[in-house]
Amino acid sequence: MEVMNRFIAIKASIDGFPQESEFEIKTETLSLSIGVGTNQVLVKNLYVSIDPYQLNRMKSQSSSQSAINFASAIIPGEAIDTYGVGRVVESDKPDFEKGDLVVGLLTWGEYTIVKEGALLNKLDPMGLPLPHHVGTLGFSGLSAYGGFFEVCKPRKGETVFVSAASGSVGCLVGQYAKLFGCYVVGCAGTRKKVDLLKQELGFDDAFNYKEETDLKLALKRYFPDGIDIYFDNVGGEMLEAAVENMNTYGRVAVCGIISEYTNNGKRAAPNMLDVVYKRITIQGFLANDFMKLYPDFLSTMMENLRTGKMKALTDISYGLENVPSAFIGLFRGDNIGKKIVQIADE
Amino acid sequence: MEVMNRFIAIKASIDGFPQESEFEIKTETLSLSIGVGTNQVLVKNLYVSIDPYQLNRMKSQSSSQSAINFASAIIPGEAIDTYGVGRVVESDKPDFEKGDLVVGLLTWGEYTIVKEGALLNKLDPMGLPLPHHVGTLGFSGLSAYGGFFEVCKPRKGETVFVSAASGSVGCLVGQYAKLFGCYVVGCAGTRKKVDLLKQELGFDDAFNYKEETDLKLALKRYFPDGIDIYFDNVGGEMLEAAVENMNTYGRVAVCGIISEYTNNGKRAAPNMLDVVYKRITIQGFLANDFMKLYPDFLSTMMENLRTGKMKALTDISYGLENVPSAFIGLFRGDNIGKKIVQIADE
Repeated sequence: MEVMNRFIAIKASIDGFPQESEFEIKTETLSLSIGVGTNQVLVKNLYVSIDPYQLNRMKSQSSSQSAINFASAIIPGEAIDTYGVGRVVESDKPDFEKGDLVVGLLTWGEYTIVKEGALLNKLDPMGLPLPHHVGTLGFSGLSAYGGFFEVCKPRKGETVFVSAASGSVGCLVGQYAKLFGCYVVGCAGTRKKVDLLKQELGFDDAFNYKEETDLKLALKRYFPDGIDIYFDNVGGEMLEAAVENMNTYGRVAVCGIISEYTNNGKRAAPNMLDVVYKRITIQGFLANDFMKLYPDFLSTMMENLRTGKMKALTDISYGLENVPSAFIGLFRGDNIGKKIVQIADE
Repeated sequence: MEVMNRFIAIKASIDGFPQESEFEIKTETLSLSIGVGTNQVLVKNLYVSIDPYQLNRMKSQSSSQSAINFASAIIPGEAIDTYGVGRVVESDKPDFEKGDLVVGLLTWGEYTIVKEGALLNKLDPMGLPLPHHVGTLGFSGLSAYGGFFEVCKPRKGETVFVSAASGSVGCLVGQYAKLFGCYVVGCAGTRKKVDLLKQELGFDDAFNYKEETDLKLALKRYFPDGIDIYFDNVGGEMLEAAVENMNTYGRVAVCGIISEYTNNGKRAAPNMLDVVYKRITIQGFLANDFMKLYPDFLSTMMENLRTGKMKALTDISYGLENVPSAFIGLFRGDNIGKKIVQIADE
């Protein structure tokens, strides 16, 4: 079987702040090799995930960012893989049938041929909206769950600071921390987001970092007794300010550093004297590290969503052509919660 | 009983590279209150420890170094406490008698009145030279032992990089790592130190960082398969270069950051993208954290010294008046091994 597929690609490596002109919509004919044991599945993409880390995969190899080699590079002109929810159009793989809902590694395109070995699971939505399964119940959720419980190692009553707190991971970390019995303050970039954190998600407090002239003083104000746990999604000056305000034996979980992805030159230089004297631990992690926790995470998260103990924030744009602007918007802070593009009707 | 005591003091807070003119020798009359249950001990100082971290305690409170508040400040004009070995002159404390050798918190002076509650233990030299008990068997040794085994969590066959490797802590870390079965490379600032590391202390390799124009490339050359453990004594650019060369799940133990103590403005800005993608852990620690390990450490270290499996490096100057120059020399890299000043004949 063949389908005409439109997909998003980058024209060339992207090393600075991404521009719409650096993306293009390409067209290809996808054909599924059936009946020869290829185990391929042709999926019509419904909802695809839009994630900041993908920018790191778009950078040139000559970039000074050595770690890029650890994330598989996105090749100009080729389809860009991403987590998402879709529906099987045709399958050569046992247990997958036409019409099945699936979740796994799809593409920023209308269709994906999921090859043997690539992540793909049948999806039972369990009564929850399909977009929830793209982020909140996917890698964003797993990052929040594993990052908070495994890396931050929280104790009840500790103080927790979350940056990009209305983002896909931050909004969940704050809610986990509250449920666990911590005191939680988040920061975000608009008044609307700050109100949301306090009024909808139960954060103890929140502030708009753009209204603060001195982040170190701001954190001293919000944490007069210091920060025990900092869940870092932004890096840069916020990381420096947090380290200065950490308590003894404080833990910094580095989930992402979105402020540094666009190579604006403001790399964090946290005070290592603080790190030594306060015995601070700064630890990076990836959601992949927590795959063994996935079943626990999924049942916990499902239960929390169903009982209303936690809320999923999803921010959905519509149409393949809007993937680049949705992606670029991440770096302007346009999104509230998990950014998703709906590619086709359910 | 009274003694005339000469001691070293700072004239005012020191915020930059220390100068001899910022120190002075003061004279005071020390009197011991005896027979009233004060539990005080008057000690004649024999060997006193000279440590880089003491510079942090000399800084002004207005300094931007927030962590200074965690180390008790050194007050201008007052005696400066330090670890050392001495001999009891008079004691109001049970179990301490005139003539006893002691080790504990003394001062950069000729005599110390050790007050109730301050660290002081009777010393059995066990056949080892007294200076060994100031550093190698004291806090420098404990920093190396606890920092390497508890913070770095080594596995046999891993690659270990030690900076300031001929320093009081570094020279022991490298030897522990070799004995444990790791591949160890150290860096130092002179050809003589480099030779010592390779020829005397058994490092697999060593280099003079002053001869390298690009530390990142240098580390790539010495660790073609990457660094698993970085034991950091210097901070700054070396920390940045090490993080870039770390392997997945690498560990950085931050023991000290001597390159940043003199406020030269070169604060480390390690690439947090590396920290995230390679899941690096950066952890600060103090020797105090490992007091529960002290008995294990002491018996291990004694045994290793006696059997010749490890060597103690001590660098001794003579005379109270040479304490400031010995101290300042630490920041020029003058010392090889543990810097000690002998105040009086044994």
